[in-house]
Amino acid sequence: MGEWGADFDTHKTQIAGILTAWGMPAENAEKTAEVMAWTDLHGIDSHGISMLTVYHRHLGNRRLRMEATPAIQSEGPVNALIDGDGGLGHAPAQMAMAAAIGKASTLGIGIAVVRNSAHFGACGFYANMAAEAGLIGMVTTSASLIQVAPTGGAEARFGTDPLAFAAPGAPGRPFLLDMATTTVAAGRIRNKANEGLDCPPGWVLSKDGLPSTDPLETQKGGYLTSLGGSPEGSSYKGYGLSAMVNILAAGLSGATFPTDPQHAKKPQGMDIGHFFLAIDPGMFRPVEEFRAEVAAFCEALSATPPIDPGQPVMVAGDPERRHAAERSAKGIPVAPGLKAKLREIAQESGAAWHLG
Amino acid sequence: MGEWGADFDTHKTQIAGILTAWGMPAENAEKTAEVMAWTDLHGIDSHGISMLTVYHRHLGNRRLRMEATPAIQSEGPVNALIDGDGGLGHAPAQMAMAAAIGKASTLGIGIAVVRNSAHFGACGFYANMAAEAGLIGMVTTSASLIQVAPTGGAEARFGTDPLAFAAPGAPGRPFLLDMATTTVAAGRIRNKANEGLDCPPGWVLSKDGLPSTDPLETQKGGYLTSLGGSPEGSSYKGYGLSAMVNILAAGLSGATFPTDPQHAKKPQGMDIGHFFLAIDPGMFRPVEEFRAEVAAFCEALSATPPIDPGQPVMVAGDPERRHAAERSAKGIPVAPGLKAKLREIAQESGAAWHLG
Repeated sequence: MGEWGADFDTHKTQIAGILTAWGMPAENAEKTAEVMAWTDLHGIDSHGISMLTVYHRHLGNRRLRMEATPAIQSEGPVNALIDGDGGLGHAPAQMAMAAAIGKASTLGIGIAVVRNSAHFGACGFYANMAAEAGLIGMVTTSASLIQVAPTGGAEARFGTDPLAFAAPGAPGRPFLLDMATTTVAAGRIRNKANEGLDCPPGWVLSKDGLPSTDPLETQKGGYLTSLGGSPEGSSYKGYGLSAMVNILAAGLSGATFPTDPQHAKKPQGMDIGHFFLAIDPGMFRPVEEFRAEVAAFCEALSATPPIDPGQPVMVAGDPERRHAAERSAKGIPVAPGLKAKLREIAQESGAAWHLG
Repeated sequence: MGEWGADFDTHKTQIAGILTAWGMPAENAEKTAEVMAWTDLHGIDSHGISMLTVYHRHLGNRRLRMEATPAIQSEGPVNALIDGDGGLGHAPAQMAMAAAIGKASTLGIGIAVVRNSAHFGACGFYANMAAEAGLIGMVTTSASLIQVAPTGGAEARFGTDPLAFAAPGAPGRPFLLDMATTTVAAGRIRNKANEGLDCPPGWVLSKDGLPSTDPLETQKGGYLTSLGGSPEGSSYKGYGLSAMVNILAAGLSGATFPTDPQHAKKPQGMDIGHFFLAIDPGMFRPVEEFRAEVAAFCEALSATPPIDPGQPVMVAGDPERRHAAERSAKGIPVAPGLKAKLREIAQESGAAWHLG
């Protein structure tokens, strides 16, 4: 154990061990653990090992099939459709982005979609796969939890509906944007509630769709806001991006839209869809020239005179890389409450315990 | 003349006449006028005929070549690169989206970029071309005017950097999102100044990067905000989207990035790049099924119980279609001040006057 927690490999082994104990085939458990451990290493704690407590709740029901064996269902020169077989999304998502990358490496562009899937962790992992292959990557996913009202509406129609985009630049410093299309993720509102603080204006709405700063609003029938926060702040743009995310992820793959009465209510699976796009800049100009320009662009953004001299301007991907550097050195922290829960889950499942 | 102004064809003829008088080849003037008149018909007054007053300022300098003859410079099975030849962007942009659509109709996906271009009007026109061909369309463009600081920064690095996305749904009702990645466009801030009103919080920043509600801030060295409006409102997301827009539009095409000291300073042309993507949903599922689901999705969003019973929930594209229906019936209005200026420009250029 490092100063803060287990190293990457141990952390990953722990995750894979629990997934295997739950009946996930070893190869898929390895792939899934890879994504989840990467996510924790990069500081996105909401989407890594902590999700095991959520997946655990679905064990034994048919909404999340641990024994799923995702497979390519159809493909063409630039496209692939993967069926997730009702299991977790991490393995089919890796399969999909790998297919998109393979096709882009041949024809210049590749597109893959996954249907019949579930939570797949952080979008950024898959977009980053493309950047590591020297390609632009774009990823979206639909969601099962519906908690966002469209601008002007007083009923939930959307999830947090994330979008990731990556482009290769300087070695080790791709541009990597991974964002929910809501103003903030549910976790940040929960943190305010835990600290007894109000939310800033523009984060949440009451069940009647009115502005609120009460972090408990979503537990009283209220909603998260779309990026923009309010009609004056152009929340119709966040709402529009959320619709775009769903058209790409659910519409192309044939997963049900979040507005469908059947959404996430089918007897089997979580009915989530994912979208993956890979673009080779080499179609248009020498790849090294493109990379050098993206690198210079990111450099120039970092070099923007900051408002506060103590807080340099960041570029998408920088905060996560800072976490990864720290955690590579000190280990991946798991908070005591979460660790206790995970230990119970491991024991109950018959998985070995590695996290100390 | 209709009750409000000229009909579409007369409006378009007026635009084409002025462009031709300025030396634009007839075929390109026709294409450019088509985009600009469509834009006015759809109520996007900031990007239609009013832009002639801006283009007029550049006549006779080498930054906007009216005699430009854009052409495909290189292409592959799924991709095309167009050189705009230093002229307005409307004609090369139509050429590019037509190429992307053609390639998508064959292989399922098509991508085209334009370099050495200038202002091309509203992104939504080109995304809509894809939707009318039964395809998903995505369009971005870089900008020449730099007026947005990255989150945490106190120097302009970006333009309003728009993004459009369209998908075919019910006949005549595609999903059509066309948005700047800033909180609002410069025109809405100018309107507040003209009315002597403050901006809502989150629209503008002072030259030191501090929040302001002064609509004259951008004339004093201040900035527009990225979508999100403030760090608490997650403006880093709007900032990230703006960077994505530039990587796609400038990075792939080889136009200079807005952070490049040479940006928009080259002796010839405005040095703007555009990006166009077309995706055939038929790669993955029957197109009619996809369209029916997008149509049902848009219907369900419209049917969301509204906060205010007098203001039904809108779907991206609805406000523009409402304008188009009204203006098709009553004519396209041109405000008196603008009309007087255009009349002067027409006279000076030797173009016939059709707008009454």
